[in-house]
Amino acid sequence: MVNAVKRVAVLGSTGSIGRQTLDVIRALPQRFRVVGLAAGKNLELLAEQIEEFKPEFIGCLPENDVIERLKRIVDIKSRLLPMEEIAADSKVDIVVIATSGLAGLRPALAALRAGKNIALANKESLVSAGEIITGAAKKSGARILPVDSEHSAIWQCLNGENQEAARIILTASGGPFRQFSLEQMAEVTVAQALHHPSWRMGKKVTIDSATLMNKGLEVIEAHWLFHVPYDRIDVLVHPQSIIHSMVEFIDGSIKAQLSYPDMRLPIQYALSYPERLPNPRLPRIDWSLVRSLDFELPDYERFPCLRLAIEAGKQGGTCPAVLCAADEVAVELFLAGRIRFTDIAGAIERTLEQHRAITKPTLEQIEAADVWARETLLKTVSGVK
Amino acid sequence: MVNAVKRVAVLGSTGSIGRQTLDVIRALPQRFRVVGLAAGKNLELLAEQIEEFKPEFIGCLPENDVIERLKRIVDIKSRLLPMEEIAADSKVDIVVIATSGLAGLRPALAALRAGKNIALANKESLVSAGEIITGAAKKSGARILPVDSEHSAIWQCLNGENQEAARIILTASGGPFRQFSLEQMAEVTVAQALHHPSWRMGKKVTIDSATLMNKGLEVIEAHWLFHVPYDRIDVLVHPQSIIHSMVEFIDGSIKAQLSYPDMRLPIQYALSYPERLPNPRLPRIDWSLVRSLDFELPDYERFPCLRLAIEAGKQGGTCPAVLCAADEVAVELFLAGRIRFTDIAGAIERTLEQHRAITKPTLEQIEAADVWARETLLKTVSGVK
Repeated sequence: MVNAVKRVAVLGSTGSIGRQTLDVIRALPQRFRVVGLAAGKNLELLAEQIEEFKPEFIGCLPENDVIERLKRIVDIKSRLLPMEEIAADSKVDIVVIATSGLAGLRPALAALRAGKNIALANKESLVSAGEIITGAAKKSGARILPVDSEHSAIWQCLNGENQEAARIILTASGGPFRQFSLEQMAEVTVAQALHHPSWRMGKKVTIDSATLMNKGLEVIEAHWLFHVPYDRIDVLVHPQSIIHSMVEFIDGSIKAQLSYPDMRLPIQYALSYPERLPNPRLPRIDWSLVRSLDFELPDYERFPCLRLAIEAGKQGGTCPAVLCAADEVAVELFLAGRIRFTDIAGAIERTLEQHRAITKPTLEQIEAADVWARETLLKTVSGVK
Repeated sequence: MVNAVKRVAVLGSTGSIGRQTLDVIRALPQRFRVVGLAAGKNLELLAEQIEEFKPEFIGCLPENDVIERLKRIVDIKSRLLPMEEIAADSKVDIVVIATSGLAGLRPALAALRAGKNIALANKESLVSAGEIITGAAKKSGARILPVDSEHSAIWQCLNGENQEAARIILTASGGPFRQFSLEQMAEVTVAQALHHPSWRMGKKVTIDSATLMNKGLEVIEAHWLFHVPYDRIDVLVHPQSIIHSMVEFIDGSIKAQLSYPDMRLPIQYALSYPERLPNPRLPRIDWSLVRSLDFELPDYERFPCLRLAIEAGKQGGTCPAVLCAADEVAVELFLAGRIRFTDIAGAIERTLEQHRAITKPTLEQIEAADVWARETLLKTVSGVK
């Protein structure tokens, strides 16, 4: 299998992670081949990607007009399939789940059930349905390979250790408002919130980084990916985003993974694992420029989303799904100028308070909780501004 | 083998590393048992250690008066044996080489040739006879497990990776004179040089840390331990001594190992490998106290010993043995007040300049080079003060 070409399906190929995945594959054509592409919105870019990579399978929203539009802008020789069927097809070796929201959940499950490793960049699937996803992986023996820089760091630090983590130290940049007071945060504009100090990402995750909700979701992900209880997962603010996370072992030794903030590295590692591959496009740290790595404990008062997420994770059941869906709508409302930055946490908290959690939910119950949370949050904030 | 008690011989048991090794074993009596102790000078402490650990074997200097003195202060039921025989005895599972100078070289070889792993704290053996030692390990399949914090860090970072390091980043505290000018360094006292900012160690290695010779020796050790050419080993000054070293891989990802400066962790890791063991005596990093990790490139002008060591390593043959021996004598002269701190490098350099190197030396040639270097350095500085 070593040196064989891995056949990759990229679900969510037009988003930030999808595009960077294709950049990695472009740099390593002797190792990876794109056999599937799927996207929901940006059909022009999807068409360009189809022209370049000529995948066997294409996934898009199943609406007829979308398919017709795509057919008009590109000469499609590929087969149009639902994402779940692409994910499970025998011609696919690894599935990159880079869709947003819960759209990636069923394709992820389909891949895992078919025994295929998934490179998981979609937080919502694992946060909302951690038990179901990790259960499917365990059953088939397929692996969930993290693409988040933090979880990739933890995974790299755990590799070769014959034991679990005694403690996970999940680093957080702290976002653009790390040093803002709550009063200052109440006045921030959308443009300010979209200006992340160290990472360039999609809008939703950039806002989540500013509220630290993103870090809270990552705590839940870490819990599921590495089977570590919540009281052994710490968050540590590290503004330079060079240490991507750390693992402490039972002897007190800590291992950390470092690199400049560039998502192509964790993407490539998930694709190439257990190998590492040279890629001249990936930057190397210049230690004459890195003078200091700084750390501070997170402030749960100023960043209540972090607390909400960890609490929802601990409660489990449908709570994390409600958290995720409520957050998505709250961020949309903020981006649309309908609520203030500091209203995001309150809106999510009021939604969670109204939720009657189901323990050990089915997939359908998780999807229903997602829909319920979106409606409830909208009702909750109606009247605001 | 898991959970079996490992039988440990500690050669150099009364020095700093020897005492800390016994502290680790004291904390984990269900996992380790001392079967051999050896020391050269501090017979009172050796006697106490014999009373406490009741080893089967004792090694001491073969002079009759030493043996008689030892017999007077302790009721010896143990067998008195040369260190080489202890190291090779079938009742010993792992040999800790914590002697100073070249005294550890033949016992290390004896252990490796007998197929026993050695936990190597003695720099001089590997620096002076790297090819012979690593060759012996390769032949028998025994392993050289590093006890230096830096090499332990590199080893921990490499564990589980199926490839060599693309680059080793060896961290250095920079010592007490990191920010001194050459003029200031010319005036430093022995007491100042013995006051290391982050590590408490023996006198010789503390002075070597102040000149950065210690880091130079570690570069040579890293070259032999990890089979990495010198141009892929970088030294990086990191005053807090929390990151103990780093490894960069071919994809640009860096792994680092962190802990408070405490030699008991690398000692324990070498003893417990491939396991890690919980030890409440080992400190854990408190991230509310670690606010910053700082870095700067080393200054080869102010710290010429670092350059001398790397050059000697690159030249190979008997040069590193000459470097080691000359340094040992130069440090003794400094400690005795006979030369200035800034004279150390010059004395070593003049000794190296007079050396006619032998490539691929035998053990005897290495030992002869060691003797030659000591005599030559003394002659070189005679007349100084």
